[in-house]
Amino acid sequence: MDSLDFQLVLDARTRLEPFLKPSPFREYGELNEWIGNGIRVFVKHENHLPTNAFKVRNALSAMTMLSDESRKKGVIAATRGNHGLGVALAGKLLGVAVSICVPEGNNLEKNAGIEAFGANLIVRGKDFDQAIQTMQELVASHGFYPIHSSNCVYVLSGAATMSLEMIEQQPDLDAVVLSVGGGSQAAGAAWVAYNRKPELSVYGVQAEGASAIHDSWHIGTPQSYETATTFADGLATRSCYEKTFPILKKGLKGFVKVSDDEIAEAVRVYLRTTHNLAEGAGAAGLAGLARLRTQLAGKKVGVVLSGGNMDSATLKRILNNESFANA
Amino acid sequence: MDSLDFQLVLDARTRLEPFLKPSPFREYGELNEWIGNGIRVFVKHENHLPTNAFKVRNALSAMTMLSDESRKKGVIAATRGNHGLGVALAGKLLGVAVSICVPEGNNLEKNAGIEAFGANLIVRGKDFDQAIQTMQELVASHGFYPIHSSNCVYVLSGAATMSLEMIEQQPDLDAVVLSVGGGSQAAGAAWVAYNRKPELSVYGVQAEGASAIHDSWHIGTPQSYETATTFADGLATRSCYEKTFPILKKGLKGFVKVSDDEIAEAVRVYLRTTHNLAEGAGAAGLAGLARLRTQLAGKKVGVVLSGGNMDSATLKRILNNESFANA
Repeated sequence: MDSLDFQLVLDARTRLEPFLKPSPFREYGELNEWIGNGIRVFVKHENHLPTNAFKVRNALSAMTMLSDESRKKGVIAATRGNHGLGVALAGKLLGVAVSICVPEGNNLEKNAGIEAFGANLIVRGKDFDQAIQTMQELVASHGFYPIHSSNCVYVLSGAATMSLEMIEQQPDLDAVVLSVGGGSQAAGAAWVAYNRKPELSVYGVQAEGASAIHDSWHIGTPQSYETATTFADGLATRSCYEKTFPILKKGLKGFVKVSDDEIAEAVRVYLRTTHNLAEGAGAAGLAGLARLRTQLAGKKVGVVLSGGNMDSATLKRILNNESFANA
Repeated sequence: MDSLDFQLVLDARTRLEPFLKPSPFREYGELNEWIGNGIRVFVKHENHLPTNAFKVRNALSAMTMLSDESRKKGVIAATRGNHGLGVALAGKLLGVAVSICVPEGNNLEKNAGIEAFGANLIVRGKDFDQAIQTMQELVASHGFYPIHSSNCVYVLSGAATMSLEMIEQQPDLDAVVLSVGGGSQAAGAAWVAYNRKPELSVYGVQAEGASAIHDSWHIGTPQSYETATTFADGLATRSCYEKTFPILKKGLKGFVKVSDDEIAEAVRVYLRTTHNLAEGAGAAGLAGLARLRTQLAGKKVGVVLSGGNMDSATLKRILNNESFANA
């Protein structure tokens, strides 16, 4: 992180200002009661942003740095959904043509949202990492400008603006517990903590079925797997990413795994106690906090409701208490 | 409306400013596609406010006008939920003791939310209008200061701030379609339209099983019924209210009824196309717009996602496509 100039985060915030207002950071008595142990939980409502997800920060931060030449080429991104929604909206706002690569079987409601912003949707490959390959092929063949969802310093500085808001909104925060898909959210938090609040503990959370970065963090070297299995599509990665892993390795205080059933329970808890809709990846931070509830007893802890783009079919399964154990 | 000084609305906005930011007013390509007929729909996200409902405007507007003497007495309100959440939060923010009357069988998640803000919950009577009676008895016996959910000019001026925001955020809006429980939302819109944008058409929507105000509007004189039956608890009124009915009578361009199944469908449409959780009363405006889709072809129309406090049990029924025909 020493190499990451904090001015980049401040600059990203200035660029985002015309497009995004700070999202609320709210405490709920019932949520505090649920977590117990005297923990005060503050929920960062990134689900209130346009596209209902923090990723719009990342996309706008990167898109506003493009040269005129790159804009003319058009932009391409690979996604399971929220990065694509962010890039598509940024393209619409800034008048840049956008192509979005998603894998086969991707969440249809996210696909529809991407197309509704006018982006060209390309469905190919088996998972997120194969969608990345598709993107790279199209960059080579068509000359599009790629915006990777984590391997881009402007994406990370965009994500970091969220954590900067959190420590300004609640200056006495002790810790944040954040889900890790590609790692932009947690890397951004570590970046902010390192520069502005070194005593803030940053924890990462991954799904048990998609734990490459979690395992790599504990082992100390990057691991890569053949598959990533979780209903929380935003967490379904199976590799480490070169720009985020070194930051996470150095900057996280701890890293836990949660089961899909624990994530589903966190979605239900958000609904019951805050009446906010969280998608799986958006609820994983809360599920991780539940795992850490002994360690964080008595602390003020931020969790990020990082995305609300849950499709109706999955929501129905969750409300019917179906098990995701063998999803 | 001639008697309603518009300065009251501007003053309410000034009083709310320290507590509430303007809520977003967003257009969704998929929602436009669903409604069809070239209508552009703009969704006012009152579900993003603290308490997830526009009623917090009403409560804060009234509570900030109390004399020190009234504050000391403590405040009381009757509610099916969102007015109570608003008054409870306003009491917490302003250091005023609050009692909230709800009927038996009220939404348990709303009750829990009210208590989580530290209010004293009183459960008595069969429906909203009986909860009003309980409130009046306790005003007489205990000297509490009552904040009625619609018969209070400061409540109405608070509600009107929402419509003022809409016409500022989308100055070329042609119409708004708003649900009517006690009528504060629609009366506020009529007040704003009359003073600031007379060409704006304001439509009201009620549930078929709770249509006293709708029927009164069409007949021309106040009707009152024995029961109000709808799963949309925020709409479950069975009388007209003296401060709102004259405004609605004069100010509405039209007034439609929708079935509970149409409201349930609107909840599903909001989920699928915007990934926002609407409670029944919060989705009724959209259901009403669907009824008006021929009349409003080609227009720019505002609907208010006025509340998001849907309980999990009802949401589950809606996602399972259960019929509410005989609810």
